[in-house]
Formats: sequence, C-alpha cells, structure tokens
Amino acid sequence: MRIVCAPDSFKESMTAVEAAAAMRRGVHRVDPTITCELVPMADGGEGTAEALVAALDGEWVEVAVHDALGRPCTARLGYVPRTRLAVVEVAEAVGLARIDPAERDPWAADSRGVGELIRAALDRGATQVVVGLGGSAVNDAGTGMLVELGARFLDAQGRPVLAGARGLTSLAALDLGELDPRLAGVRFRIASDVTNPLLGEQGASAVYGPQKGATAEDVPALDAALARWADVVESALGREVREIPGAGAAGGLGAAFVAVTGATPESGVALVRDAVGLSGRITGADWVFTGEGGIDGQTASGKAPWGVAQAARAQSVPTVLFGGRVAEGAEALLGAGVVAVVPILRQVTDLPTALADGPVNLERAVATVTRLLLAGAAAGRGRPVPQPSAERSATHSRADSAPRTTET
Amino acid sequence: MRIVCAPDSFKESMTAVEAAAAMRRGVHRVDPTITCELVPMADGGEGTAEALVAALDGEWVEVAVHDALGRPCTARLGYVPRTRLAVVEVAEAVGLARIDPAERDPWAADSRGVGELIRAALDRGATQVVVGLGGSAVNDAGTGMLVELGARFLDAQGRPVLAGARGLTSLAALDLGELDPRLAGVRFRIASDVTNPLLGEQGASAVYGPQKGATAEDVPALDAALARWADVVESALGREVREIPGAGAAGGLGAAFVAVTGATPESGVALVRDAVGLSGRITGADWVFTGEGGIDGQTASGKAPWGVAQAARAQSVPTVLFGGRVAEGAEALLGAGVVAVVPILRQVTDLPTALADGPVNLERAVATVTRLLLAGAAAGRGRPVPQPSAERSATHSRADSAPRTTET
Repeated sequence: MRIVCAPDSFKESMTAVEAAAAMRRGVHRVDPTITCELVPMADGGEGTAEALVAALDGEWVEVAVHDALGRPCTARLGYVPRTRLAVVEVAEAVGLARIDPAERDPWAADSRGVGELIRAALDRGATQVVVGLGGSAVNDAGTGMLVELGARFLDAQGRPVLAGARGLTSLAALDLGELDPRLAGVRFRIASDVTNPLLGEQGASAVYGPQKGATAEDVPALDAALARWADVVESALGREVREIPGAGAAGGLGAAFVAVTGATPESGVALVRDAVGLSGRITGADWVFTGEGGIDGQTASGKAPWGVAQAARAQSVPTVLFGGRVAEGAEALLGAGVVAVVPILRQVTDLPTALADGPVNLERAVATVTRLLLAGAAAGRGRPVPQPSAERSATHSRADSAPRTTET
Repeated sequence: MRIVCAPDSFKESMTAVEAAAAMRRGVHRVDPTITCELVPMADGGEGTAEALVAALDGEWVEVAVHDALGRPCTARLGYVPRTRLAVVEVAEAVGLARIDPAERDPWAADSRGVGELIRAALDRGATQVVVGLGGSAVNDAGTGMLVELGARFLDAQGRPVLAGARGLTSLAALDLGELDPRLAGVRFRIASDVTNPLLGEQGASAVYGPQKGATAEDVPALDAALARWADVVESALGREVREIPGAGAAGGLGAAFVAVTGATPESGVALVRDAVGLSGRITGADWVFTGEGGIDGQTASGKAPWGVAQAARAQSVPTVLFGGRVAEGAEALLGAGVVAVVPILRQVTDLPTALADGPVNLERAVATVTRLLLAGAAAGRGRPVPQPSAERSATHSRADSAPRTTET
C-alpha cells in the first residue's frame, strides 16, 4: 500500500513539511510497512519555497538583502541544484511581517530585496525561478527589484527617480540597456493567489494599499503613480501589462514580472502542484491524505488541499482531507474526489493548546483513518478485520516519533 | 450492510437514545440503505430505564412517590408489557439530585419512594424487576423501601422505628409477616456500578455518606446504625448480607435487596447488555458503533462502550468507539475488538457549545467513519472507491434530520 501525504501548512500550528511528517507518523503507528510519500504543499504564498525544497531535495541559501524600508536583513532562497531551480518568496525579503505597523510607508517601501534574491539565484546558476508573490509591504510595481537587476527608471531630466512609489510620480523613462543579461536565459513562473489588475478599484493600491499603511488620501495618489509607471513601461516595452490578472499582486510586482520576463501570474496551487510533480507521485497510490488548518466551504476556491484532491481525482485516487478546524460548509467538499473530511481535535481546549497539539493530533487522526480504511478493506475482502494492537500512550509515542520520521 | 449503534449517553450532551439516533442519522447521510439497529446502552446508573425501555419497546409509567425527605413527587418507572419487566432507577424517586445540598440529611432520608415504585411495578403485574442503584440520597439500608412493601422494623418495645437511618439506632426486630406476597413471584436483578460492602471503611456511610450530608462525626454513628440493621436482618433471615459486594450501594439498598430478594448486585453494564439482548442484536452485524462523552484509559474498567466492544468481539464484529472527549490513554483501548477511537469535535470551541453541538457532531463523525469504511471496503474489493455526494450544509441537515430518524 502506498499513501501520498500532501498537506498544506496548518497555519500557526505546523508547516506543510511538519504536517506531512506527522501524517507519516500516523500511518506508521498502524502499519510501518505502508509506503508514505511526503509531498508538502503550498499555495504560492508563505511556505512555497519550503514545500519545493522539501519535495525536490533542494537546499536553503541565505542571502543578505534589504527589507522594504531599506534595512539590511537576511532572507532565504530555495534552490534545487539538480534542476537549477530557484524559489523566491517575495515576503522573505520585503514582507509585511518584517515591518511594524507604525513604520509602514507605502510611498517609501521598495522591492529592492526581491531583486537581490533573484540576483543571488542567477549567481548560483538558476535557469528556472519560481516566485511566490503575496505578503509584501511594497507598492512600487517592482521598481526597486528591476533597478537592482540593472534597469534604470528616470525622470524627465534623465535622473534616476527616488526609491519606492514616491519616485514613480516623476517617472518619465525606462532604460533596460543594463538589465542583467542572464535574465534572458531564465524561465520565470509567477505564483499569485490573487487576480487583481494593477490599477483602479480592484488594483494594488486600492485593495492592498491600506494594509501597507496607505491612508484614504494616499490610495488615489498611489494608483496614479502606478498608472504613470504603466504608461512608461508599456510604451518602453510595447507590451500591455496593466490589465493582466495578478498584475496587481505584491504592490505591482506582478506587473513588473509580466513586463520584463513575459511570465503571466499563475494560480499558486497549480504551480506548486506542477513544480513538485504531484501528479506523478500520485500515480499508483492507494490514497492521498491532505489538509490544512481550516477546512470550510471556501476550501474549494483554490486552496491547496482542494488542488491536491483534484489532482488525485484525475487519477481516480481517493483523497481524505484533514483539518485543524472543520467549519460549516465543509461537507460541500465531499464527492469530487474527497472521500471524507476529518477534524483532528480530540477534546475541548483553548486555541493555543490546540495549535500546540496540532502535530500529535494530526498524527492520531491519520492513524485512526488508516485503521478505518484497513478495517474497511479487510471487510471488503471478506476477511476478519485486523485488530490493531494497543498503542503506547501519547506521552511515549511523542517521544518515539522523531526517529520514525527519518526513513521514507 | 448492518450496523449496530449501541452508545452510552454523552453526559450533559445527549442521552443514549439521542446518541443512537444521531449515529443512525450519520450512517444514513452516507447510505440510507444501510440497516441501523439502535441499542442505546447504560451502565446501571442514570439512563438505565430509558435504555431498556427503548431497546425492549417498553413504556413509561409515572408514579406518585415520595422523595428521600418524604415530599410528594413524581417518578418514572420503565415497563415492558411483553415480558412483564419493570425497570426501577433508585435515583428517580430518592435521588440526590432532587435534594438541595443544604437540605441533605442522611439521618432523616429514607427510601420509601423506591418501595412505592416497586409496588407500582407489582400492581402492573411485573414478574421481573431490574433495579438501578446509584445516585441516591439515602443511608437507611432500604428500610423505608421494605416498610413500604409491608416489612415492619421494630424497636425493643415492638413499636415501629422512625423513618431513615435515625430509626435504625433503636432497631431490635424485623417482622416480614406482612411483606407483599407478590414479591415472591418476582425475579429481581440489581445493577450496581460499585462493589462496596455495607459497613466499615469501604462501606456505605464512610464512602458515600459525606456526599449525602454526613459530617465526620456522623459517619461512625451512621455506620453503627447500619451495623445494627445488619445484625437484626441477618438474624431474622439467617442470611449473611453485610459482606456482599455492592451491599453498600445506594446507602445499603443493595443489602436490603440481597436480604429480601436473594438477588446479588451485578455489574450494570453486563446486566443492561443482557437485558437489551445486545449479543443477539450483534449477531450478523458488520460493524458496531458505540461511545460515550469521555473516552480514556478508564473506559476499559467496566464502562458501557467497553462492554459493548467485548460483546462484539466475542462474535468477531469490529467496533468503532466515538467520544465527545478523547483523552490520554484512549489508544490503549485499541486491539481488543476496537478498531478505532474517534473524537467527534470539529473545531476549538467552549464546553457549552461543544455539549450543545454533540448530536450534530456525533452524526457527522459517524458519517465520516461510515464513508471511510465504505471507501476501504471498495478498495479492498479492488473496485473504484465510491465518491460520496456533496452534502447539504449542516444548517439544512440539522433541520432535515428529524424525519430521517423515524425509519430504521
């Protein structure tokens, strides 16, 4: 028997890598001879690099970069030497989480740090770069990133504009003559979980500006700055970018990638699914286990577990969905490849305890489901249902669980 | 496919009857053609009469009785006309729950109400009486009950003694000449979940007296009163009663039954199991579902779900155990007929909400387990795993669930 364990992260409780390991421990509690293939998932946001590094046997590279306010910091880059694939999460460098709410400044924030990460990827020899947009503190349409990679954004007098969105108000010309030539040899894939265009009511400034510190007065001014950027960039490159879905992701970084790399933002789930080779791993499996922190009616709107279930369904492999919180509407997920939606909680407790107990609760829920599937299978074959042996208490199994995670 | 649903109550959330109905709704959410046999269980304490009435197609009889302090009240008697079986729960008449803590008086409290219930059973023609001890407010060794049934407890001057334990301090003789002659034609079975003897450190007064209002000074005096009762009763009947396990249950009511009916207190779970014909109902079933509010390492010490699992195991029918709260040590239950222990909670919430949501959570957990067993069975037969159809949201299914409970 072979089970693919492909969870997303259980937010605030465990990463996708940790969740997949907990799933394997659960299966092996019941039968250590079952093969568990661990394919931690992500939706293009936080955890994307970790999922790809784990799935593709990659490594972590620490890079000295600058955060959205220009302060030096260290960001991680995922790198898979075998396929020369780099994974850049925008939020690693210029993430909103790095900036105190009181310090947020959508006019000053710039995306230079993303350019630094990409340069580090080029320096390592990357020929493929996956970029996870989302969670950024910037609203500069990737200007800082492109400057870092050699582009020159100039005012009417031919002088470089200021960093951040404030520089865009005087933007007059774009010079890509010095752009890093290695970029031409790289295939970019851009993961976005939003489809906003660059400008307007559904644009970057209006929708995501406020959480980055924009006041009501700032929003139209920021929108005008990005419009000016679009005018200049589109005329310089002869390529329409402002209306592309996802161009408004990460403060317009989506548009910058469209403009310079030709890549179009894609659904993060589908991209990660492709990148980790999920379908190939599902081939021949008996079951797929996936899940995330919260399962509800929205899960079918492009969340990672749903994407996993659909990939499994395409090969008629049934999926079981595990959730830290299974809310109203979760039953609507049943029937499209999903056999059952299973909550992992074991008793009434407070949220911090539930989050802390997430890994062991997931392990136990997976063990329970494995037992039920095996019992059902034995009954289906007309054989006596096997009796699982009594387990050691959780106190023991917690301590014992570490060694079991080392073998696949 | 046939599934036996034999839960105990989920305390403070649902009775065993309600839990069994929720289980059936859960199974029928998945496949309405599965036969569900509902066998609500009990452990000889609260809920025993309801379980037997439900399982044996009995009826409820309301009887005007007196509570432990002699106040008129109404108590229920379970009655199964077909087999002329009556079910008396001591706590229905003289229960501790009927008496405010401030009013509790172990010297005054008497068991007359139990005698009234038994008389009502005799009046209906009962030839079998199951008595559930436990939860009583009395400490009179069943004197009030026996007086109500015609016994005469007399002092040295041949006058009837006062009601309650206080009368026992002057007890000198027992006259059973006027005892209701119908009692001789009745088979009594006495359910007790405790095995205390009548007297001493593990006796009724020492162990249960304090919760009935006895002070530290009262305990030895109450114990001496019961000892006097034992001396008189044993010499009158020529039968040893004080050392019988369970004689100390319900303030010595256990001893009174031993003395007058010859019945010996039995494990409540085994007695209920026999009375509802559980083993016969399990014969030929594919699965047994049971459970109760809390599942932990103690569940194997004589709790009803464990008794159910053992009855199923004897016929090689696998059992799934559901719990409102699955605590440390529950895994130790696996392997002796128990295939899986399944918590029903779906997300972090407070206890009152969890208790209120118990029925719908149990229904959903049972549906999930049923889906997994069916999916496993299909896989075991080498067939494609069936895809359950998406369900209506819980808001709908809650409203819809009532009509589904009417058919079996």
